[in-house]
Amino acid sequence: MVAPERLSGVLSPVVTPFKDDLSPDPEKLANHCRWLLDHNVGLAAFGTNSEANSLAVEEKIFLLDYLVDAGIDVSRLMPGTGHCALTDTVKLTKHAAKLGCAGALMLPPFYYKEVSDDGLYASFSEVIDRVGSSDLRIYLYHFPLIAHVGFSPSLIERLAKAFPKTVVGIKDSSGDWSNTESFIQLRLDDFRVFVGSESHLLQNLRAGGAGCISGTANVNPAAIHQLTINWESSDAGDMQKKLIEVRSIVEQYPMIPAIKAIMADFGQDPQWNIVRPPLVSLSRQNSANLVNELRQSGFDMPGLLD
Amino acid sequence: MVAPERLSGVLSPVVTPFKDDLSPDPEKLANHCRWLLDHNVGLAAFGTNSEANSLAVEEKIFLLDYLVDAGIDVSRLMPGTGHCALTDTVKLTKHAAKLGCAGALMLPPFYYKEVSDDGLYASFSEVIDRVGSSDLRIYLYHFPLIAHVGFSPSLIERLAKAFPKTVVGIKDSSGDWSNTESFIQLRLDDFRVFVGSESHLLQNLRAGGAGCISGTANVNPAAIHQLTINWESSDAGDMQKKLIEVRSIVEQYPMIPAIKAIMADFGQDPQWNIVRPPLVSLSRQNSANLVNELRQSGFDMPGLLD
Repeated sequence: MVAPERLSGVLSPVVTPFKDDLSPDPEKLANHCRWLLDHNVGLAAFGTNSEANSLAVEEKIFLLDYLVDAGIDVSRLMPGTGHCALTDTVKLTKHAAKLGCAGALMLPPFYYKEVSDDGLYASFSEVIDRVGSSDLRIYLYHFPLIAHVGFSPSLIERLAKAFPKTVVGIKDSSGDWSNTESFIQLRLDDFRVFVGSESHLLQNLRAGGAGCISGTANVNPAAIHQLTINWESSDAGDMQKKLIEVRSIVEQYPMIPAIKAIMADFGQDPQWNIVRPPLVSLSRQNSANLVNELRQSGFDMPGLLD
Repeated sequence: MVAPERLSGVLSPVVTPFKDDLSPDPEKLANHCRWLLDHNVGLAAFGTNSEANSLAVEEKIFLLDYLVDAGIDVSRLMPGTGHCALTDTVKLTKHAAKLGCAGALMLPPFYYKEVSDDGLYASFSEVIDRVGSSDLRIYLYHFPLIAHVGFSPSLIERLAKAFPKTVVGIKDSSGDWSNTESFIQLRLDDFRVFVGSESHLLQNLRAGGAGCISGTANVNPAAIHQLTINWESSDAGDMQKKLIEVRSIVEQYPMIPAIKAIMADFGQDPQWNIVRPPLVSLSRQNSANLVNELRQSGFDMPGLLD
């Protein structure tokens, strides 16, 4: 097994399809992963938009094994592995590292609030020690609006310097560009800073960031990828503008049900509408409005039905 | 097996002792449970103050089995069973019901934020359906400051009316008495409203509430119990004042490490100081200050060393 290379470009927190009984549908997930890879988008399976935090560790292990057995390239896989409980995080991260996944996108333990940087450092340090793999590559997952526990620049620096071969990047889902800049300005060695939305992709690439890990890459992968390879071209500004336009249409609705409604409509597969509680599917009317507005903007998902 | 009776009085989210390797110490936990029961305090094992959200489901199942095997009375057990993931909540709740636990204290799924009452209703409804036990008694766990997902009065009413034999109470850890009052004023049939702190215990009992489920009951059980049985006496106001005095001393420090520091000192057992990351133990100086202030106030933990 080759040691994982650091990632860049576009990844998508892969939305998780459910069956009627709310169990995950591994085959449909693998198909969606293949479509994303065909569009040059890597797989941040088990992200927030994957409803990963509505899945038990054993469900995630089952799905990860299924994907790898189905031939999904582990060098494009960066599963989310951070849980509230130390032992859960260790279990899934260890499994991902054993499978050879390129990285693990790691939320901090997010139940207890107002925890100290020392406590978070101890948590990551303990996870790294227990996983005990030189092939582990951790991308920190900063999402203060949802997790309510995040990473200060000094904590990031401390972790990256203590574990330079293991803590190799961060996803900043704060939505606050000045915050992302503060991460980049740490100037850590080959540290990969991803934005959590393609709306800041061009800014991020120009500032030396690595790319984006974005929920809407589930449905708009090709256009987002195009910007990452053409960000120095004269068209880059227009491409960024168009990405923001599409994302703004989606963002009128709750993100996860909206992405699934798009999958259901463009994939002609209503099963994609199913979400696990506490989420709720979009109403028929909202789904229709969302899809109509997208189609009118010229949006499409080529190859989804192949 | 007798159908569980609805609970009232004082319960404690039992602090979880850890060994040096951060694994839970079941024997020490059972001993602490016995001491609490001897002081008329019920066992809300796996609450927030138990660091339950730093434990995996299988660790909680192991501990619960250990406690029951050790002879801890299931009619005094109300383990916390709510997780982010539907399947985790179902697994632990089903296990607790099978063991005959008096109740399950249930956090809502707390990762996804700004979820709708419809989504939370669907989540609880799904859990109740999947557990499928007429012996299940759910106490909703409202802790908006930590979970950031809570229960509106209309959601509580909807759940209690849809599942009148199952959704039988709530713990209000909002710390806001007017909020607790709004729950009591729903006037639901035999619905047990607990406050999350003994500081509002007298108010709650006078208003028709059921009691309190409080972290500091780990260390001050007898005095808190005394108020619940003497709340109509002329001394009740003084007793309440004394409870607030003790709690205020503890609340100068982070609650969980502070309770553990008290256990360690009064129990002459430094192992009690161990917390799981992301929490951090109190410094020696803070521990000493806390314990000194408590001793000066006349606080003691009789029988702890027997």
